Amino acid sequence: MDFSALPTTAFMRPDGANRDAIASLLHQVVDLLVETMAEATERSPLPESLEVQDWAQVPDRSVDVESLLERVRSQLHHAMNAAHPGYIGHMDSIPTTMSVVGDLLVAALNNNMLSVEMSPVFSRLETLVLQQVTQLFGLGPEANGVLVSGGSLANLQALIVARNQAFGSLEHGIPQGQQPVFLVSEVAHTSFQKAAMIMGLGTKAAIPVATNKDSQLDIDDLSARISRAIAAGQKPFAIVATAGTTVTGSIDPIADMAKIAQRHQLWFHVDAAYGGAVMFSQRHRYQLAGIELADSVTFNPQKWLYVAKTCAMVMFRQFDLLQHHFRVLAPYMNDHNDWPNLGELTVQGTRHADILKLWLSLQHIGRDGYSAIIDHNYDLTQAFTAAVKARPFLVLASQPQMNLICFRAEPSGVPAHQRDSWNQQLQQWLLQKGNTFLSLPVYRGERWLKAVLLNPFTTAEHIEQLFAHIDAYHTAHSAVVRTT
Amino acid sequence: MDFSALPTTAFMRPDGANRDAIASLLHQVVDLLVETMAEATERSPLPESLEVQDWAQVPDRSVDVESLLERVRSQLHHAMNAAHPGYIGHMDSIPTTMSVVGDLLVAALNNNMLSVEMSPVFSRLETLVLQQVTQLFGLGPEANGVLVSGGSLANLQALIVARNQAFGSLEHGIPQGQQPVFLVSEVAHTSFQKAAMIMGLGTKAAIPVATNKDSQLDIDDLSARISRAIAAGQKPFAIVATAGTTVTGSIDPIADMAKIAQRHQLWFHVDAAYGGAVMFSQRHRYQLAGIELADSVTFNPQKWLYVAKTCAMVMFRQFDLLQHHFRVLAPYMNDHNDWPNLGELTVQGTRHADILKLWLSLQHIGRDGYSAIIDHNYDLTQAFTAAVKARPFLVLASQPQMNLICFRAEPSGVPAHQRDSWNQQLQQWLLQKGNTFLSLPVYRGERWLKAVLLNPFTTAEHIEQLFAHIDAYHTAHSAVVRTT
Repeated sequence: MDFSALPTTAFMRPDGANRDAIASLLHQVVDLLVETMAEATERSPLPESLEVQDWAQVPDRSVDVESLLERVRSQLHHAMNAAHPGYIGHMDSIPTTMSVVGDLLVAALNNNMLSVEMSPVFSRLETLVLQQVTQLFGLGPEANGVLVSGGSLANLQALIVARNQAFGSLEHGIPQGQQPVFLVSEVAHTSFQKAAMIMGLGTKAAIPVATNKDSQLDIDDLSARISRAIAAGQKPFAIVATAGTTVTGSIDPIADMAKIAQRHQLWFHVDAAYGGAVMFSQRHRYQLAGIELADSVTFNPQKWLYVAKTCAMVMFRQFDLLQHHFRVLAPYMNDHNDWPNLGELTVQGTRHADILKLWLSLQHIGRDGYSAIIDHNYDLTQAFTAAVKARPFLVLASQPQMNLICFRAEPSGVPAHQRDSWNQQLQQWLLQKGNTFLSLPVYRGERWLKAVLLNPFTTAEHIEQLFAHIDAYHTAHSAVVRTT
Repeated sequence: MDFSALPTTAFMRPDGANRDAIASLLHQVVDLLVETMAEATERSPLPESLEVQDWAQVPDRSVDVESLLERVRSQLHHAMNAAHPGYIGHMDSIPTTMSVVGDLLVAALNNNMLSVEMSPVFSRLETLVLQQVTQLFGLGPEANGVLVSGGSLANLQALIVARNQAFGSLEHGIPQGQQPVFLVSEVAHTSFQKAAMIMGLGTKAAIPVATNKDSQLDIDDLSARISRAIAAGQKPFAIVATAGTTVTGSIDPIADMAKIAQRHQLWFHVDAAYGGAVMFSQRHRYQLAGIELADSVTFNPQKWLYVAKTCAMVMFRQFDLLQHHFRVLAPYMNDHNDWPNLGELTVQGTRHADILKLWLSLQHIGRDGYSAIIDHNYDLTQAFTAAVKARPFLVLASQPQMNLICFRAEPSGVPAHQRDSWNQQLQQWLLQKGNTFLSLPVYRGERWLKAVLLNPFTTAEHIEQLFAHIDAYHTAHSAVVRTT
């Protein structure tokens, strides 16, 4: 074709004709990236956003590379700065270096996890590595998993398989007159309501189970609600435990729930999207005891294993259930006898090769490395929790079980109806003055401050400074309220 | 923490302490990548796979970077080599350079499209750029779209919104006694059966409509099947047109289907995952006339716009329908009045920032650049089609409407029952001897050869050589069959 309409660097020419120009561009981008990431502490954890309205138009002609990289530089500087040690507000953090290496290479190769033919190396690698992970979780010899683009899809797929198995709904849908429901803690992730909605059951089919004061599912309420659902003519088909809830990082009583699932012959799913990483710590993995009894498990290396987004998986105790209760054939793809076409076994078809960054990260950091980070996060959480407890004006939402601390200020001088805005102002002040970002979830009808101690570069000193700022704010502002 | 358990380059330290080591590693990876991509023509389009069994184990200790990069080098050399001009078998091709730039930066930033707070720049950019794209498709002033990780999710989300609007099924599910169905061409993508299954309707709820000899949906059969479904007590809620079918690249009669949808008050979805790119060509966009009448459109820049996987979108004529018929609130996220939290409006929650590589590619290549490539692909298709027609032993599956040619050999000397294997052997021979990969779909019960002329570096000479190889094989092998 006539390439004069295209910029020289539009594609990496397969004959190498523009090799030098491509190399020069990519090295320039690496320099920009290294500069940006190596100076993360010099920007706010949550910078002011950027006005991008003028850049959205699709231009007729090519915009030159230098102008583009200048705009990109602004975008980088105004993006969420999760690498900052003071960014401790969400389950988002600094990615492993190998995530960057993996995604760089995967983008250039542009393989497709839809089929073995389109990703011969990565399809095999995914199947083999995920089998290893199922063994770490103790899911037994018939287990395997698939990667999906995020935890919501992992939870969705687990429930679809459970539903199709229970109701034979793959071809003919949910039989007339049946009302499938599943049970899940009232503080579980909203992806369960979303899954129920997507699956045609409606958000209300995710029956909420009460939690105790530490935000863990109440096992008696679970039994009661199963009975009540059956009495009301509904058909419970699954129960869901969470290992690491979104707001407080709480762990449901997994082993007890497994027994109830068995007694009622219900599918048992564990959403360990966040908490699954704890299986990498010898010291802390006991907390997830019972997970080995699950029929399916969601686990997101994109969270506590620091693999760049997205990297999530759903594992099945009996992987061949996917063949019988999920698979939709794609006749335009070549069959390979010994390896599955993963696009037939997942909600997605075409899929990015997330396995490379996961595999590289696991190899580069190793189990011991991950264990060291996770144990450190726990130690820091203990210090943080002690600091909350040492202050009478602070309350914990629940006793932390992972590296999340959800707390709020209830200063004696501040009336109850002003406490939400008081905490909100404290949060803004900590961001502006303390360079620390805590998020501000609504929980039990009130505003709380949430800390997620993920970043390996967050230190005990950072925590001390944070509480010094909290104390200063408290001193200044509880006095003001008292006098007005 | 004690970082002695971790390799120096585990993370890009936010204080820059390991800046030189990180820069050195990333520059080394860029060199490996450039070398690999600049020598794409020297490897097979579809290399032999690699035995990766021994690498799957999660090691206790860190594996050193040099060993890892050596393994990665092997993986790169055995991956699907879609950049090769002879790789013309699937809707997969060489990515734009800016895809690589975008994904490299996005991995390092690790922002999260779940919420505005977690991706302040990219959430805004996605909403603004997709609005521009909806205008290119003529979808009107109330239109916008969201990016999702692949076309299957785009089709799924469109149908969920259609279903929820028709049946009020967001909270309470599909009302008892209702049997929702939708109608879609018999040759449409399998993601529609998958969507029907996921949605609890069963694969059979995707009612297949007959196609004409050119693989386009038969409008009379569509009307007949709508009537038949209603008579059988089913509730049709949507019809689906395809612009660019998977096997033959055919375009359904979009404008006529829009009229039928209007007459029956059905949701009208157009799956332009592949063909949507034609809207970028002034010369060819007339072929998609009627798409501006759609209620929703799937369009995948990851295909004919060469953006690296995944990059797919679903657009809605009335974007605010998502608020009423899809949105599930996530109370742990901060609200922003003027920008939506995209995770509440899509099937996924956490999501990769695919917008950066899309935006960069559109800026760098421009509408004129894309138009030039697409027009070139069409010209090449004309030459390819002429070459098929010039050979009496070759037959076309349908008259090409885009840059896909589906054909097969039916040599007079080869008995009908041997033709599938004859074509299969021809495909293998073209790969081995001609360095050209055609895929081998099953279509209308037979094996066909499929060419997708996507790669901008595939030339008229490549096509001529391919047919010279086909002729040589035909001469050699039809003779053999005749004499045995």
